[in-house]
Amino acid sequence: MKPAILSYGERARLHKSPAAKALLEVIERKKSNLCVSVDVTKQADFLKVIDVVGPYACLIKTHVDIIEDFDPSLIKNLQDLSVKHDFLIFEDRKFADIGNTVALQYSSGVHKIASWSHITNAHPVPGPSIITGLASVGKPLGRGLLLLAEMSTKGSLATGSYTEEAVRMARAHDDFVIGFIAQRRMEDVGLLENAGESEEDFLILTPGVGLDSKGDSMGQQYRTPEQVVLESGCDVIIVGRGIYGKSDNVDVQAVQSQAERYRTAGWEAYQKRISHKS
Amino acid sequence: MKPAILSYGERARLHKSPAAKALLEVIERKKSNLCVSVDVTKQADFLKVIDVVGPYACLIKTHVDIIEDFDPSLIKNLQDLSVKHDFLIFEDRKFADIGNTVALQYSSGVHKIASWSHITNAHPVPGPSIITGLASVGKPLGRGLLLLAEMSTKGSLATGSYTEEAVRMARAHDDFVIGFIAQRRMEDVGLLENAGESEEDFLILTPGVGLDSKGDSMGQQYRTPEQVVLESGCDVIIVGRGIYGKSDNVDVQAVQSQAERYRTAGWEAYQKRISHKS
Repeated sequence: MKPAILSYGERARLHKSPAAKALLEVIERKKSNLCVSVDVTKQADFLKVIDVVGPYACLIKTHVDIIEDFDPSLIKNLQDLSVKHDFLIFEDRKFADIGNTVALQYSSGVHKIASWSHITNAHPVPGPSIITGLASVGKPLGRGLLLLAEMSTKGSLATGSYTEEAVRMARAHDDFVIGFIAQRRMEDVGLLENAGESEEDFLILTPGVGLDSKGDSMGQQYRTPEQVVLESGCDVIIVGRGIYGKSDNVDVQAVQSQAERYRTAGWEAYQKRISHKS
Repeated sequence: MKPAILSYGERARLHKSPAAKALLEVIERKKSNLCVSVDVTKQADFLKVIDVVGPYACLIKTHVDIIEDFDPSLIKNLQDLSVKHDFLIFEDRKFADIGNTVALQYSSGVHKIASWSHITNAHPVPGPSIITGLASVGKPLGRGLLLLAEMSTKGSLATGSYTEEAVRMARAHDDFVIGFIAQRRMEDVGLLENAGESEEDFLILTPGVGLDSKGDSMGQQYRTPEQVVLESGCDVIIVGRGIYGKSDNVDVQAVQSQAERYRTAGWEAYQKRISHKS
């Protein structure tokens, strides 16, 4: 199987993970491979931005732990918006601890991430036990996990053999790992010598996507949707401040227009990709 | 400078970081290099365990994000216990995101970690921007950061060149990084060819310490205080379930006796170390 030349809809039909299938279906249904990262610190701003960008996104990426006035009603409101606008939720928690601890962090605390986040992610650095710890909580709920195989920051250590090990770990746990945070496809990475034709279909979600800026002052680096989806074969573009700006004062029309601009750019890059390669 | 052969008190006198100095001072004052990791999910159990182990510990390690009934009063109570029993607080957050995000996670959200945790930690995987992001919040408050240079889990990817890069990153940011989560001293790791005699004094805090067990079912592996402090030259032993058990039903006398047992084992290993090598 060559995920990069199949349509999202076809991959949805073939995928065995309920979380991956659901995401591929919503991408096809909404013609959107845009994930919007909503990094604001107040409930009201958080819900406002999501209500505005929701129609354009397949996935909303959250950092629930930066919201100062968090209370459980926020989750109910987020879930209502997820139904209203037909998107999935991805808490970008970047779990990075030992199995026993991440199982508690995922299931418990005030945020109870596993109970509402369809997809979450983890760093492979602790070794395979981080996956089994998270799977013990998330798999019975039909959740999916992304491993951070690469990062978009300057000086990232997630390169070379680190990335290869991440991919091998994912292959060994493909009943819960549905893909990667990465900058390119991973089918050819970390293969053992005798590996035959593979049936794997890992989703590639890519942060650090921007149409206007090359980076920020804190080490983030940007690439365009065309570079990411067409040239590198990634599946979902993750865009944050490029859509809703730095301000917590949401200009609805401006944000809608940016969201539509990124949705179109991501979708056109995908259409070129599947038509070029078929 | 050879930190492994100096006393904690002498290193406290020489250290330029307020957080490292404070920790070294409390270690010397209480004759304890024991950090107790308190991984329970209810406020009442959390405070109860800390009140019992506090007299034996230099440092209490927390996972505030697993506490289900967290509210801001917990922080006040934790700070009161920190004064009552003379220990510092280490929120084991394992930050692992880009600079802009970790700055928000550290300062904001319901937990406001920077406002109460003397020491916290981060994975070096995103590159140096994670340190500058956290330092922008923590340095003005006199906080200190530990980098995860190694992990105690099976199949950890924090080895070889990854560990070397972590140490180089710390050296380049030693105005905020005070040491490592690691299994051995780091003075000889990642040195460039022309490096001369160094004045560095990074604290080494070591998890995965146990007197009775070799591991758990989720990939954690254990070593004894003697192996960690005497043989490997580490500074602080981190012990969790080995002291307070798995139960949330605290047997005060049993827990006190385990805490004293680990404090003694860690301190005797340190005394052997500085007398052997002087």
